[in-house]
Amino acid sequence: MLISLTTDFGDQDGYVGVMKGVMASIAPSATFVDLTHAIPPQDIRSAAYVLWTALPYFPPESVHLVVVDPGVGTARRPIAARTAWGAMVGPDNGVFSYVWDVAPPTAIVELRNPQYRRAEVCATFHGRDIFSPAAAYLARDVPLEDFGPAITDPVRLPAPTCRFQDGALHGEVLYADHFGNLITSIGRLSWEGAQLRLEPAFSAAPALLLPFERSEVFVVGRSLGPLRRTYGEVAPGAALALIGSEGLLELAIARGNAAAGLGLLIGAPVTVQLS
Amino acid sequence: MLISLTTDFGDQDGYVGVMKGVMASIAPSATFVDLTHAIPPQDIRSAAYVLWTALPYFPPESVHLVVVDPGVGTARRPIAARTAWGAMVGPDNGVFSYVWDVAPPTAIVELRNPQYRRAEVCATFHGRDIFSPAAAYLARDVPLEDFGPAITDPVRLPAPTCRFQDGALHGEVLYADHFGNLITSIGRLSWEGAQLRLEPAFSAAPALLLPFERSEVFVVGRSLGPLRRTYGEVAPGAALALIGSEGLLELAIARGNAAAGLGLLIGAPVTVQLS
Amino acid sequence: MLISLTTDFGDQDGYVGVMKGVMASIAPSATFVDLTHAIPPQDIRSAAYVLWTALPYFPPESVHLVVVDPGVGTARRPIAARTAWGAMVGPDNGVFSYVWDVAPPTAIVELRNPQYRRAEVCATFHGRDIFSPAAAYLARDVPLEDFGPAITDPVRLPAPTCRFQDGALHGEVLYADHFGNLITSIGRLSWEGAQLRLEPAFSAAPALLLPFERSEVFVVGRSLGPLRRTYGEVAPGAALALIGSEGLLELAIARGNAAAGLGLLIGAPVTVQLS
Repeated sequence: MLISLTTDFGDQDGYVGVMKGVMASIAPSATFVDLTHAIPPQDIRSAAYVLWTALPYFPPESVHLVVVDPGVGTARRPIAARTAWGAMVGPDNGVFSYVWDVAPPTAIVELRNPQYRRAEVCATFHGRDIFSPAAAYLARDVPLEDFGPAITDPVRLPAPTCRFQDGALHGEVLYADHFGNLITSIGRLSWEGAQLRLEPAFSAAPALLLPFERSEVFVVGRSLGPLRRTYGEVAPGAALALIGSEGLLELAIARGNAAAGLGLLIGAPVTVQLS
Repeated sequence: MLISLTTDFGDQDGYVGVMKGVMASIAPSATFVDLTHAIPPQDIRSAAYVLWTALPYFPPESVHLVVVDPGVGTARRPIAARTAWGAMVGPDNGVFSYVWDVAPPTAIVELRNPQYRRAEVCATFHGRDIFSPAAAYLARDVPLEDFGPAITDPVRLPAPTCRFQDGALHGEVLYADHFGNLITSIGRLSWEGAQLRLEPAFSAAPALLLPFERSEVFVVGRSLGPLRRTYGEVAPGAALALIGSEGLLELAIARGNAAAGLGLLIGAPVTVQLS
Repeated sequence: MLISLTTDFGDQDGYVGVMKGVMASIAPSATFVDLTHAIPPQDIRSAAYVLWTALPYFPPESVHLVVVDPGVGTARRPIAARTAWGAMVGPDNGVFSYVWDVAPPTAIVELRNPQYRRAEVCATFHGRDIFSPAAAYLARDVPLEDFGPAITDPVRLPAPTCRFQDGALHGEVLYADHFGNLITSIGRLSWEGAQLRLEPAFSAAPALLLPFERSEVFVVGRSLGPLRRTYGEVAPGAALALIGSEGLLELAIARGNAAAGLGLLIGAPVTVQLS
């Protein structure tokens, strides 16, 4: 059984290894895939984005363990959920929101059963003492319901904005990848001949066909020119907007770093003016 | 069979992958867990600390491969050991000391048997040519004794200091984690009502119950104030001391980097004045 | 079946995890070994070097997936090859050249069969949509020939220079490792008493025995002194040349960073003047 791990622990210390040791002790046949341990510290939105991009590609019987947990040691609940994209284990802080927007949970429980925790729970390392045991027991097919009481009011982040209004698409910056490319909430976009197809990425709304004769992309009042098809359409060093690998509008600087060069933070508004 | 890896090789080059290739060739069913490859170059004490924190959480039949090896190519011996926390393979330079303080080796051998090395041993990469084959053959259940002669005088680091004297606990900085938190040798500490329980972390000495009415933590003559229970008790940017996830006294700066901000090196003295 | 991964994706984003999810969905029993994901962006030569150092140590039935792919989305072909060092999957851009200089491919195909790709292929992420499925199906023993038509004209990098002429060995810088050591194309070198043995590293040419009475190593007109046997022969901070773990001439600064200190780029000429 595959267990994926997503944390903000970095790779310097032994923390991730410790969690794998705990899980291997409970579920010896589990295999581990590191999604990333370089989520910016306590950045729930970046983690939510990474999970949304990755989870649909995993076997649906996988277990996904997430420890990006600014509220560790407070009253925030530890939870597990079942969805069509696999089981999920982590803090109740909204980190699964973008996934749940598309793959709604069929059940969510609070991790309360002491049988599936370590005997001593340290207030600063629930990853080791609560979440890892839960992920490992889930991988051993312990039913979700055995972990604790059902909850129906999990914390949710606001869904990423993507609306078509007054001839323009409106969204926001969601994530900066390690190349410095800025990925936005606008999409999924694809070309259908002379039209642009918009299939909402973070909801179950129906797809739209949008007129696409001319376009201009704006970020915080600055124009990045028209929507491009490839990086090669602009000179090195120039900013551009194109459709990225997830079908989302992406802001980039050709052979450069858009996050640094454009100075945009997660949440910055983005507009695509069409025709 | 699980083999963990701990090195100072970083993750840029293919060195760790090469070791896994060697091991997979010898023990195809072995599974690998990276503890960390970001030990500061040649920092035996940091590696000793990481191993001490991680190994108790692994299945006891695991094999732990460690290559933090400033003496590679010199006369330092390559060794393997058996303990209650699993088998260990690495250089005889004290890197297993903190583990052995708690889980004493029942047998240690020098890795001399040419049958369990690569045919050609490169003077600068024993990780590939000596240690990886040994770990893989151990994972295949080759008896420890077959690898070479027993040794009884392995190199040991001084045990981390933690003593209670004149109403104060005295210890030292052991490790800086990637958040910049400084972890000390003072512990394991826990609260028992109004008293502080001290269960020696690096020896088999009996636990102590210490009076705990007031406290003050000093590092190199500077006070960090009283022992705190959570990060939230001080303002962002303020230094504090609290009990960390291993039960060890930890020095931190709230939302900051104590290693940088306090300017302390591994080995710096730390005192907790009680009542 | 073991699948190794080599990319320039870094470890911050979920891209590598996504590829493993795709592969685990197709080949549930595959195991993954990360060679490195820190190849400098789009640096085909560094990737070619890392593969050359690592692949001989893996089980020969392994599959090696490589995504260092500046030409993604252009007409460059996606390919797979079979060699004595395992199967290889990646872009047709020369990244396998150094491996193929020693382990020539017995078959190369272009990855065209839509049955072994994802249904939708994104122009910027062939790693997920073309290469990962191919690697996973190869690990499931789908015959190479089923993936597409044979090709006989793959892109090849020039073989690394290493020639003996006028009493000197001439080569070039191939790779900078994370310690800053500069690894050259001169080798494999080893001592045979008072002689130096040269066994060509990147071709099948016969070995040479070279006179070795005195030597002097030059990089871009600067002398690094004689060929040394260990780092300890020079003072900390001094530059030196010695034989590295692959038998290749290596340029280093004792306890320092030669890549930074010597200011040499990949491709810089290196000469060893003998006797």
